Parts: sequence; structure tokens; C-alpha cells
Amino acid sequence: MSSQLPVARQHFIQGLSRISQFWGFPKAMGAIFGALYLSPNPLSLDELVEQVAVTKGAVSTNVRSLERLGMVHKQIVIGERKDFYFAETDFWKIVKTVLREREKGEFDRALRSIDESLEMVEQQVDTENPELAQFYQQRLQNLQAFFHTLDNLVATFLALDELRMGALERIIGSKMEKKSKSRST
Amino acid sequence: MSSQLPVARQHFIQGLSRISQFWGFPKAMGAIFGALYLSPNPLSLDELVEQVAVTKGAVSTNVRSLERLGMVHKQIVIGERKDFYFAETDFWKIVKTVLREREKGEFDRALRSIDESLEMVEQQVDTENPELAQFYQQRLQNLQAFFHTLDNLVATFLALDELRMGALERIIGSKMEKKSKSRST
Repeated sequence: MSSQLPVARQHFIQGLSRISQFWGFPKAMGAIFGALYLSPNPLSLDELVEQVAVTKGAVSTNVRSLERLGMVHKQIVIGERKDFYFAETDFWKIVKTVLREREKGEFDRALRSIDESLEMVEQQVDTENPELAQFYQQRLQNLQAFFHTLDNLVATFLALDELRMGALERIIGSKMEKKSKSRST
Repeated sequence: MSSQLPVARQHFIQGLSRISQFWGFPKAMGAIFGALYLSPNPLSLDELVEQVAVTKGAVSTNVRSLERLGMVHKQIVIGERKDFYFAETDFWKIVKTVLREREKGEFDRALRSIDESLEMVEQQVDTENPELAQFYQQRLQNLQAFFHTLDNLVATFLALDELRMGALERIIGSKMEKKSKSRST
């Protein structure tokens, strides 16, 4: 019986491509993560081009997106001119990275453009085309409110998560204390 | 003073493009949603091509992704051969649509490919290249476990949300009952 491993690997990469596409992300994004996730060694961009069968440009764009989401990391190999990449395997860490990303400058700048658009519109509400200005104002305010609620929810979740981690550490810590106490008595 | 509304609109569309790109989605996806969100009337694909300045193919692919996420809807206009699209404005409905999407066939099929890959690998664990087979097995099992946990979390969230909605309706219902009672006495 010949090895099923390359077949299983290809099947998995195709599955992740489909999940990626399903959520509206580029297909190559899922495929690249799949290829790195089932690789025992870090891979270069050229190796990814070979394995995933997309252009080098597409590989490099999608690797950058994956890096930003904390799903892949760069590994610097001394004496090698190429960059190598490996997959993050702690999925909860990825979830938290994604949720924390929203605090960073680039995302903030994007959200600020909603506030700025709203300001421009509010200067126009009583002048020319007041109906359209009011329509824009309403819609922009609604989106702004949603983003703020979402942001508070995520911040609460991350804070709770840290509390929970802290509590867990205290429980583990106190158990260890008890153990060492019972051992010492 | 000339109207700032087209400028505000363009600024908003650019902001949503950037948010979209930031999370690894195609830029056009955010731009198209932005154009529809700030449009008092539904728009055709051709109108979107004009407003967002991408190819018709890209518009149609991204409109389909947005439709699947429940972010835009098709409006059938009687006597018109073209399809028209409008933006969903209830953002919590979008969140729930996205979370419920995972129960649908296409997503399920994609997840099943992970299970199938794992089965193929498990048939190989004791034969050729056992180390690589074990590595694949471990990684595929971890991803499978993560997806199942995530799925349970989302299902719990949706169930709680329905309970909460039910409770809200009961509270509103009993208040309305009280009001009508106090009015009748």
C-alpha cells in the first residue's frame, strides 16, 4: 500500500481553502496556513509557491495577512537569505491576537475614518441636500455605535479572560502550596 | 460652500476598504458594503462597478461573499432585468447570520475534509513514515478539537441569545399586560 500521507495533506489543504473562501477570505490564505500547519519544518515563500500553486505575489500578500492575524510567524535562519515561516499551533492565542489587533494603530486609523466622515456630514445637515445628509448621518452613527459596542464586548472578554487566567493561576498556586504544606507536615 | 457629502461618502468607503483589508478580506468587499450602506436606493452590479472602481467580476464575487454573510441582500425589481442589492443595517442580525452559517452544508463539507484527512492519516500511523504520520495525526486532532470547542461555544451563545430574547419578550409582554390592565381598571 502506497503512502496516503501526501493525499491526506492535499485533502486537508483543499479543505482549509474552502473554509477560507466560505468566510470571504482569499482561498490561498487557507491553503497557505494548511501547508504550514502540516509541515514539520518552516517553509520559504518559494516552497509555499510550489506547494500551494499560486503566484509568489499572492503567497507574499496572504502570508502578510496571516502574520498580522498571528496565524503564522517568521523564523530567521542564520546564514540563510530567505525568510522562513511556520504556523502558530495555539489557536486560542490566535483568537486573542485577532481580538487584540483592533487596539493597534492601523485598525484605529480605519475606524477613525468613520468618525471623520460623520463629522463632514454633520457640517452639512442643515445646508444643501439636508435629507441625504440626515440619511448619511443616521447610518454612520449606527455603524459607529455598533463598532463601539463590539469593542467594549471584546475588551470585556479579554479582561475576563485575563482574570480567569489569574484566578486559575491562583488556584493552581494555592493547590501547590497545600501540596507542599501537606508534604512538609 | 460646496457639498461635502460625496467627499464624506468616499472617505467612508475608503475606511471600510482598509478595515476589510486589515482583517485579510479583499479590499473590494469593504468598499462594496460601504457603497451600499450609504445608498438610499438599492444599486445594480453596474452601478457598483462605477462607484467602487473594480472589475465587474470582482464586484460579483464580493457581492456573493457579502450575501452569504448576510451583509447585503438582493432586491428583485419587477420589470427590471438587472439584480439590485441593498445593505443589511441590523448588525447584530449579521453577527448571528455569520455564526449560524456554520451549520450549513458547505461549511460542514469543508470541516468534514479535516475528519477525512485524519482518517487517511490514522490508517498510516503504523506503516510507512510513522513519525510524519504521527505528526500529521497530532496536528489534525488539535485543529479538530479546536473547531469542536468553538462550535460548542457559538451554539451556546446562540442558544443563550434566544433564551434572552424569549425572556425579553416575556418581560415586555407582561409589562404590556400590566399596562392594559391598569388602563382597563
